[in-house]
Amino acid sequence: MPDQTVHIYIGNIIHCNKPFTVHTFEKGFIAVRGSKILAIDNVSALGKYKINLGLRNTHEVLLKDSQILIPGLIDTHIHACQYPNIGLGLDRPLLEWLDTYTYPMEKKFKEVEYSAKVYDAVVKRTLYHGTTTACYFASLFGNTNLILADAAIKYGQRALVGKVNMTRLAPPDYLETPEQTVTNTRRFIEAMLAKKSNLVKPIITPRFALSLQMEEMKKLADLAKEFNLHIQTHISENTEECKEIGNLFGKPYADVYDEANLLTEKTILAHAVYLSEAEIRLIAESGSSVSHCPSSNLNLRSGLCDVKELVHAGVRVGLGTDVSGGRSLSIMDAMRSAIDTSVAISFHKNKEDEEYDPLNCYDVFYLATLGGAEALALDDIIGNFEVDKEFDALIVDMGIEEGCADYLHECTPLELLQKFVYVGDDRNIVSVFVSGKKVK
Amino acid sequence: MPDQTVHIYIGNIIHCNKPFTVHTFEKGFIAVRGSKILAIDNVSALGKYKINLGLRNTHEVLLKDSQILIPGLIDTHIHACQYPNIGLGLDRPLLEWLDTYTYPMEKKFKEVEYSAKVYDAVVKRTLYHGTTTACYFASLFGNTNLILADAAIKYGQRALVGKVNMTRLAPPDYLETPEQTVTNTRRFIEAMLAKKSNLVKPIITPRFALSLQMEEMKKLADLAKEFNLHIQTHISENTEECKEIGNLFGKPYADVYDEANLLTEKTILAHAVYLSEAEIRLIAESGSSVSHCPSSNLNLRSGLCDVKELVHAGVRVGLGTDVSGGRSLSIMDAMRSAIDTSVAISFHKNKEDEEYDPLNCYDVFYLATLGGAEALALDDIIGNFEVDKEFDALIVDMGIEEGCADYLHECTPLELLQKFVYVGDDRNIVSVFVSGKKVK
Ligand SMILES: [Zn+2]
Ligand SMILES: [Zn+2]
Repeated sequence: MPDQTVHIYIGNIIHCNKPFTVHTFEKGFIAVRGSKILAIDNVSALGKYKINLGLRNTHEVLLKDSQILIPGLIDTHIHACQYPNIGLGLDRPLLEWLDTYTYPMEKKFKEVEYSAKVYDAVVKRTLYHGTTTACYFASLFGNTNLILADAAIKYGQRALVGKVNMTRLAPPDYLETPEQTVTNTRRFIEAMLAKKSNLVKPIITPRFALSLQMEEMKKLADLAKEFNLHIQTHISENTEECKEIGNLFGKPYADVYDEANLLTEKTILAHAVYLSEAEIRLIAESGSSVSHCPSSNLNLRSGLCDVKELVHAGVRVGLGTDVSGGRSLSIMDAMRSAIDTSVAISFHKNKEDEEYDPLNCYDVFYLATLGGAEALALDDIIGNFEVDKEFDALIVDMGIEEGCADYLHECTPLELLQKFVYVGDDRNIVSVFVSGKKVK
Repeated sequence: MPDQTVHIYIGNIIHCNKPFTVHTFEKGFIAVRGSKILAIDNVSALGKYKINLGLRNTHEVLLKDSQILIPGLIDTHIHACQYPNIGLGLDRPLLEWLDTYTYPMEKKFKEVEYSAKVYDAVVKRTLYHGTTTACYFASLFGNTNLILADAAIKYGQRALVGKVNMTRLAPPDYLETPEQTVTNTRRFIEAMLAKKSNLVKPIITPRFALSLQMEEMKKLADLAKEFNLHIQTHISENTEECKEIGNLFGKPYADVYDEANLLTEKTILAHAVYLSEAEIRLIAESGSSVSHCPSSNLNLRSGLCDVKELVHAGVRVGLGTDVSGGRSLSIMDAMRSAIDTSVAISFHKNKEDEEYDPLNCYDVFYLATLGGAEALALDDIIGNFEVDKEFDALIVDMGIEEGCADYLHECTPLELLQKFVYVGDDRNIVSVFVSGKKVK
């Protein structure tokens, strides 16, 4: 075997080594061989590592003082086929928005050519915004969903791709029969697994409990078990929907999914705004997790999801853009929205004389990286910079404005991270790595 | 007099012809001579106008279908000298944030060279983000404040520039004596007026009631009266501060300013989060207005300002970025934050069974344009596209992504505006005009 080049990134490194805990190497290094992290430490120890690990063929990348190396951002909930609608109809309530903008758009994904254009754009653009892992809702159509998977493989994005299941409560030409929805899903799974990709996997994706009968949900849960797959769906997004769930199933939202065997350790539930304490406990015990989509919850006027309450109960939480309920495909925007939402909750709690310490910029950085990996049950391979994990990372530069070094506050690495969370955009993400490979 | 070229902009035009009322010309034109709007109508009428107005020497600019022409954005509250701190320390409460980040930064503006660099960047960057009019807090130092005014003149931004007054409650080396604060302000005003600029005017700027004695505030009000100037200050930003006002002055915040004669028809008050009904009435009656700074109020955990309540009481409201309490120098960000804040208020009200219709994207578009002009008492010359008003405008293009025409939803002009409000950034602002002149 030839002596593979080891890439060594040297500079300010920031990641979360534990939940809600930011760890900084002010002058650190990460050594990467192939897709994996070989070593991480202070740069003063680099010489020692080179000898001990027998590193000869190395390529060193020296970061600037205005740069930080951070783990890639993880979008735990994004509807790839809603991307063309981004920013549209956001003042409408959920069900009206679905009928006016969302379903008509999703139907277009019957067409191969159209799907190819959109999915190509979605993968390129989200990567460009630092999303190294995306958990995608695609459309009902298995064959064009494969195009999304191919785009992720082509551009080098880590992704879970879900073929949506719906047999009820959508336009007649955007529904499957109970038989079709299961058969088509099996066919989709088999086609996905045949790709033998390390980056891209299928995920079971019942749209939400109102779109399916209990029997069908159970069959989808069986498929998840048979192939050991992830599961994603929506839960408790707004009050209207929760009421209908009660009417239809006669039990709380989380209990419906529990009965359907959909609450597994590899299940991620989007929104979770209106769960009762008992439901939260049920989800925590099942090991399922929540995708917090704060921008979407504000735009569609759904509600304020209390992340602190979920975390306190032992539920793992990641961030989702929920494009196009969310207004931006950037997890940076989701981080800011998560802070705003938590601060808004704190105003309310403080009025009632509760002590409530809202999420800060470091907390949401955790949610966007390690928290997302944990929520997707992928924290054994991604989420932070641990030896033997995959190298999914961003080089962020907060000094890209011409001449700004002359007047900007001289920042510590943590202050650079603050700036990134509060005012960064895609232009500040100068490099993106997935599985060791530079993709931006 | 030579026949001056008339510039005619043809395409989708959107502005507010009345408060909270969006008006669209789907195929419209605006004719501009010098700095002023000569005519606006549907393009079908253009031939008639050319004859009636005797337009011979014209230059026509044809907008694309993905573009809209809108009034320039108005930032009614921005601290120019806090720009280098943008995105820093935002999880700290107001007074701690002032001591750690803000005052140390503002002190640096004693230096001419440093001031020149920062003010140059602030004016260029805000113009680039579509701020055609900015109401600036500068620093304590009159001489370097003039540098900010010069930068606005140089780059063609409309601006009110305020020399800050403080005699108490700041570091000893960043304070004036009661005599100095009045004398220095008079000197600053005279230097500003000597510039004889149509674009840039001085504004009386007591920092907030805690920074001055009643006597000093009265003298500043006298100066405003003597020179017929605008006034700006802060009011009711957070609960801590309101308590201290009560302790110090023994009366509500608005009453303090009223006693000081600072509530005029050309006064703009930033924040106004915790005003009582009586205070709101007082402000409405005085004809003073409010700068709503939603991003700052969330970042510094101040509170949620209820714009609807202010407007309902007859108070004019504009939007402010409040850099660097606000995290972005873009009024686009302030628009989004204003929606989020209003939606968060609605969740709270709806729980209490009140009907509350939160601000939508058109409402905040009004606040950012005509509302801002009204709040700054400049609506006789800017804020929308009326004949004889100054032509301050943006050409916004929501189709700048390569190849996006192939897959994006075909948008009406109002849908393009929605997209701009929800997902636009400075890259979508392809041209900026101030006083008829193209400055981006
Ligand atoms: Zn969703
Ligand atoms: Zn301010």
